[in-house]
Amino acid sequence: MPVYNPPLRDMQFVMHEVLKVTDEFKSMPQHADTDVDTINAVLEEAGKFASQVIFPLNISGDTEGCQLNRDTHEVTTPTGFKEAYKTYVDGGWAALSCDPEYGGQGLPLVVNQCLYEMMNSANQAWTMYPGLTHGAYASLHTHGTPEQKATYLHKMTSGEWTGTMCLTEPHCGTDLGLMRTKAEPQPDGTYKITGNKIFISAGEHDMADNIIHLVLARLPDAPPGIKGVSLFIVPKFNVNADGTLGERNGIYGGGLEHKMGIHGNATAQIVLDGAVGTLVGQPNKGMQGMFVMMNAARLGVGNQSLGLTEVAYQNALAYAKDRIQMRSLTGPKAKDKPADPIIVHPDVRRMLLTAKAYAEGGRALAIYSSVLLEKSHNHPDEKVRKDSDEMLSLLTPIVKAFLTDNGYQAATMCQQVFGGHGYIKEWGMEQHVRDARINMIYEGTNTIQSLDLL
Amino acid sequence: MPVYNPPLRDMQFVMHEVLKVTDEFKSMPQHADTDVDTINAVLEEAGKFASQVIFPLNISGDTEGCQLNRDTHEVTTPTGFKEAYKTYVDGGWAALSCDPEYGGQGLPLVVNQCLYEMMNSANQAWTMYPGLTHGAYASLHTHGTPEQKATYLHKMTSGEWTGTMCLTEPHCGTDLGLMRTKAEPQPDGTYKITGNKIFISAGEHDMADNIIHLVLARLPDAPPGIKGVSLFIVPKFNVNADGTLGERNGIYGGGLEHKMGIHGNATAQIVLDGAVGTLVGQPNKGMQGMFVMMNAARLGVGNQSLGLTEVAYQNALAYAKDRIQMRSLTGPKAKDKPADPIIVHPDVRRMLLTAKAYAEGGRALAIYSSVLLEKSHNHPDEKVRKDSDEMLSLLTPIVKAFLTDNGYQAATMCQQVFGGHGYIKEWGMEQHVRDARINMIYEGTNTIQSLDLL
Repeated sequence: MPVYNPPLRDMQFVMHEVLKVTDEFKSMPQHADTDVDTINAVLEEAGKFASQVIFPLNISGDTEGCQLNRDTHEVTTPTGFKEAYKTYVDGGWAALSCDPEYGGQGLPLVVNQCLYEMMNSANQAWTMYPGLTHGAYASLHTHGTPEQKATYLHKMTSGEWTGTMCLTEPHCGTDLGLMRTKAEPQPDGTYKITGNKIFISAGEHDMADNIIHLVLARLPDAPPGIKGVSLFIVPKFNVNADGTLGERNGIYGGGLEHKMGIHGNATAQIVLDGAVGTLVGQPNKGMQGMFVMMNAARLGVGNQSLGLTEVAYQNALAYAKDRIQMRSLTGPKAKDKPADPIIVHPDVRRMLLTAKAYAEGGRALAIYSSVLLEKSHNHPDEKVRKDSDEMLSLLTPIVKAFLTDNGYQAATMCQQVFGGHGYIKEWGMEQHVRDARINMIYEGTNTIQSLDLL
Repeated sequence: MPVYNPPLRDMQFVMHEVLKVTDEFKSMPQHADTDVDTINAVLEEAGKFASQVIFPLNISGDTEGCQLNRDTHEVTTPTGFKEAYKTYVDGGWAALSCDPEYGGQGLPLVVNQCLYEMMNSANQAWTMYPGLTHGAYASLHTHGTPEQKATYLHKMTSGEWTGTMCLTEPHCGTDLGLMRTKAEPQPDGTYKITGNKIFISAGEHDMADNIIHLVLARLPDAPPGIKGVSLFIVPKFNVNADGTLGERNGIYGGGLEHKMGIHGNATAQIVLDGAVGTLVGQPNKGMQGMFVMMNAARLGVGNQSLGLTEVAYQNALAYAKDRIQMRSLTGPKAKDKPADPIIVHPDVRRMLLTAKAYAEGGRALAIYSSVLLEKSHNHPDEKVRKDSDEMLSLLTPIVKAFLTDNGYQAATMCQQVFGGHGYIKEWGMEQHVRDARINMIYEGTNTIQSLDLL
């Protein structure tokens, strides 16, 4: 049976002994009172949620996958996913680092970072449902009108509604300038949006009351290429003036992809058929709002592979201590047994130590990045905000590409530690490799990240 | 739709222009008359079998997988597999390089090598059914008694019966000295064998009339460890004196593994319940016969990854020429289109060229090794035989580990060329990665190969 033990001590080491995050927070009014004990106590509970609620659904969710009813366009997520999501919302986990103005708990982003590392270790496919919401939340929080914020941010903060990013179309992924989805202005100030999007993670599901799609599309008079792309909010259900849910909007799941991994997440083809949307930010400046979301997502994807590296390492270490096979090159170590545990063998140690180094180094980088993100938003000194933002711009593609390349290698090496058993589904290791593989591709392939870094 | 075009010209280049294999064959009486045209003509037909008969079953076989009926212990292979195998047997492909004394066509091993590269490109999971037979054939051909050869080799040569290697047990893979399966001598000279084997590729299936299991087990008086292991033939159906099939033997599939890949191959848990077997070679010297089989299998596994590297490369190349996205860094190349084909981008070229180099270099090494194997058996000069055998001993773990490490990387890179589409099953690329992953593990993990090389 696979294991996952939240690495609380390792997180505390990076936060409190290496980076001394609470010292950083002292200069920020909203976090000045956040102390070490509070952070540790929250993360201890977060670890319980990850390891006890969603980790047990990881293999079963992979095996069962998501089902689309093509008549109703409704998606059924794997058994237990919906209930786990209710536990997540009821526990206030969605709101952990969100703005108190919209009902958030206002904790530093580093707490959310560590929550998500643990949730990704436990169940990446499940974690993508709430995870995408954070990017949509950040984009609306930065670029939304007061009315849009009032309409959407409370429910996205609580997690009652989730978010998506609708960028990719069948013929354009990296090159969003080729996009064809159209937005027609309506007399009431809204837009009717028509087109086809693909690869929309958490694009349609049964876990939340509403799904807030952030959609890139072209206005009729838009210039060609990337400078003619605008950003729209397109909710699954229109929202009435009193905040209640109105009619079903013309945006629905047209199909689900059959994928190598993350089977528990509904990767949807999204059809927009005259769906009603409202503009976010300025016309033809949609990439500004989308980049807020995209950068949050890139850090999030790096964090996914950090989580998988950690859980793959933990399981490979446990197996290497338990499985006996051959003797140590330097003579028997477990003389009471017919063979030594395989952790005595140099190449097994090499693979384990590489994975451990990737997990610990990746964690330090990810936590450091979350502190930079915090400072870029909330530090009172403008220069600190600007410097933090610049450093984060440099580090974001590194977090995305370096952690995901390493995560795939680490998952592959930890699988190798299991020998033939690593190839068998019940041990859980091959799923980590399959899940880790997408992280090198989505939110911009790792090659694009390297161009961005240059 | 995935494509596969047999790389006949590339094979011819290595065989006839680089290695000049027919010059080598001139000194061997049994191959002295084998000319370039014959080899090329056979491989052209072989390519048709691979690309037209088994390639179309690759994705469907992965999706459907194998089913075990737990009452009858019968395995149903994916739709079309059985019919394709009949075509293979009827076409004489099983007998291509087998000994004419047992009905073989007696062609040089290099022809079989190239046949198997193409079959592995087309469908690794299917190809493992006949592939395992070659190792069992080689082991019996070298170490079997005249009676055993007369009983089994004709049908294994024709492909009417297939073979397996039953080594691994739940608690021992690499460390075969820990083996527990027991063989009890019977008054009639046979043995009753009892134990549990796992990870038996092609261990039970519906494609052939009989399955000839080569089983490692311990005699009652066997010394501990690897020096107390003996090799036995244990057929699925006992064979009557007249060559017809007799009673069902006490060896059957107890379960099938759910794996990361090679879903079309039945990876069986094999239960031996007093199964009747006959000894191959000397008591307690079972590893001699098993190593003949194992070394054939290790070359075969390297060849599997060569095949996957080639097919992954072909598809990535085709996609990179077709998919348009962004402009070349040196200015537009396809000015009539809204973007350039992605093959213009440096990192896409890097990935394609790496895969191409792995395919072409791997092919040269694999073909060279097959010529060495030929010379080690059939060269009239004893010194050439010995030198060839020694060089092959050096190269075998390299073919296994280097080609399979490279194959996994190449499949992963070729998948990356497809961006998000590489993660979707219908494009076929993610299956290549999943299938390639096992090759680094089975027939001795790549780490064990490196120890063997040292």
